[in-house]
Amino acid sequence: MSAAGAGGSGTTDAAAPSLPRWTGPPLGSLAVIGVGQIGGSVALAARAAGAVTDVVGWSRSAETLRRAGVAGIVDRAAPSAREAARGAAVVVLATPVLTLGALAEEIAPVLRDDALVIDVGSTKRAAVAAVENHVARFVGCHPLAGTERSGPDAATAALFAGRLCIVCPTGRTPPELVALAERFWSAIGARPLRMDAALHDRVLGAASHLPHVAAYALAAAVGAIDAEGGETSAALRALGTTSLRDSTRIAASSPVMWRDIFLDNRAEMLPLIDRLAAAVGDLRAAIAAGDGAHLEAFLEAARAARGKVVPG
Amino acid sequence: MSAAGAGGSGTTDAAAPSLPRWTGPPLGSLAVIGVGQIGGSVALAARAAGAVTDVVGWSRSAETLRRAGVAGIVDRAAPSAREAARGAAVVVLATPVLTLGALAEEIAPVLRDDALVIDVGSTKRAAVAAVENHVARFVGCHPLAGTERSGPDAATAALFAGRLCIVCPTGRTPPELVALAERFWSAIGARPLRMDAALHDRVLGAASHLPHVAAYALAAAVGAIDAEGGETSAALRALGTTSLRDSTRIAASSPVMWRDIFLDNRAEMLPLIDRLAAAVGDLRAAIAAGDGAHLEAFLEAARAARGKVVPG
Repeated sequence: MSAAGAGGSGTTDAAAPSLPRWTGPPLGSLAVIGVGQIGGSVALAARAAGAVTDVVGWSRSAETLRRAGVAGIVDRAAPSAREAARGAAVVVLATPVLTLGALAEEIAPVLRDDALVIDVGSTKRAAVAAVENHVARFVGCHPLAGTERSGPDAATAALFAGRLCIVCPTGRTPPELVALAERFWSAIGARPLRMDAALHDRVLGAASHLPHVAAYALAAAVGAIDAEGGETSAALRALGTTSLRDSTRIAASSPVMWRDIFLDNRAEMLPLIDRLAAAVGDLRAAIAAGDGAHLEAFLEAARAARGKVVPG
Repeated sequence: MSAAGAGGSGTTDAAAPSLPRWTGPPLGSLAVIGVGQIGGSVALAARAAGAVTDVVGWSRSAETLRRAGVAGIVDRAAPSAREAARGAAVVVLATPVLTLGALAEEIAPVLRDDALVIDVGSTKRAAVAAVENHVARFVGCHPLAGTERSGPDAATAALFAGRLCIVCPTGRTPPELVALAERFWSAIGARPLRMDAALHDRVLGAASHLPHVAAYALAAAVGAIDAEGGETSAALRALGTTSLRDSTRIAASSPVMWRDIFLDNRAEMLPLIDRLAAAVGDLRAAIAAGDGAHLEAFLEAARAARGKVVPG
């Protein structure tokens, strides 16, 4: 019974045999609003796990929606977000975070009384409040998964395997709905972790959003050197160092998605960026002064600090 | 004949079968001064390739030298850099860049007339000049290899496989010696690329040194959040995001090595750090102003710039 939803799905990216599966009958139809890497991966994984019977999708880009069909992510393309959500047992909101409030307002009138609505956004405080204004059966979620790639072609059923999914219930979230959301994420391989939305935004600001600021700024600075052309640019392009590649990897991420995250988490970001700027300024001053002792102490402290917040 | 040098080497890390090999009789003894990850890897690779008959090593740390012996990197530990270099056919200077001038002065009196002396330092202009003052048969080299790990335990014979090695001859370098150095690097798997030392320092400043500034600064900034303790620190440590891990990976590198690189390449670093600081400031201003259009344009341009300087 648990495998029923996966049969004949037409996906090319089946879940690995070791992934957990949904137990019991599938919940019903899954609506995925925004069929990029994350939304698409939820669809592939949920169907492969047998958690849902079929997938209906919508994207504001007709081309993205077409590609999601070709990739076997959606069984049916809806003409609007509202039509996608109509009658769905599970609705996944997977569009940039600043769009979520309006999206919730649009779909609210057609939601099933027993629907589970979740999002996958990288910021939670404002977004959860905005969606809750319109949708009672909503659980704010943030799977810590995804790469710098974007779009349905980057979606895979195994994307969430072993990854944390932050779940941010509020005082208004029905407890049984939180449990259902966590069961859903577990069935597609993620490890749910409950966290207050405000704490989420503060911690992710440091652990994810600030690294993106640093990576985009570094890419821009090196890009300015490259733009000067000549032998420097030619040599720069010839080298392809792993240090530049790895430290700017996440600067290949979606500009629209990160524009929204930075703006939505502005209150946390500004003091974090000030800390980053101060650290860059401190390093610059030590180098300019030729202060080897201070420089070494700074680098040693930074290395030790990294060892505490980055696993193994 | 070409395999003679590799026989009975006692190394635990033999070169992969696909690595190139030295053709012709081995050059003679290899002296490795500084038996960290890079120096140790040159030793393992050169012996595995049959380029040298045996390896004598020296480190200012007796413990490092002992571990290099245990790891099979050196056949014999010398009591000083000078004694290591005495009679060697190839001498590799693999200590922090600011030590190279004094090291060259120390070993110059005992060098063989036909010795090949190379270094592996990450900055070239000042170091090449400093060594050339004392050693005529010197070729400045910088293999673009190595990881954030340090020490002899991080050395492997395959470290240079397929990696570029920048070779920086000057007007004083004997042409046959440049050719010999390039043959040596090719035999241990690297791809030699000639470059003027000044251009090297400018380009590596952007491609490697500036990424290290960004990574250390980011690690320091996130470390400051972590140091505040409480639930934020606990959650930060629990998350272990890949974005933070990858963008600060190189901040796990050796503080002493990077202290020297930053100071030695100060003239190139300061304007580069100013560009990085300006980019961070630009992002901050756009976020503070809620200027989504400028923010998106900045992120899009940074992503495009990265695509030009980082291979596929």
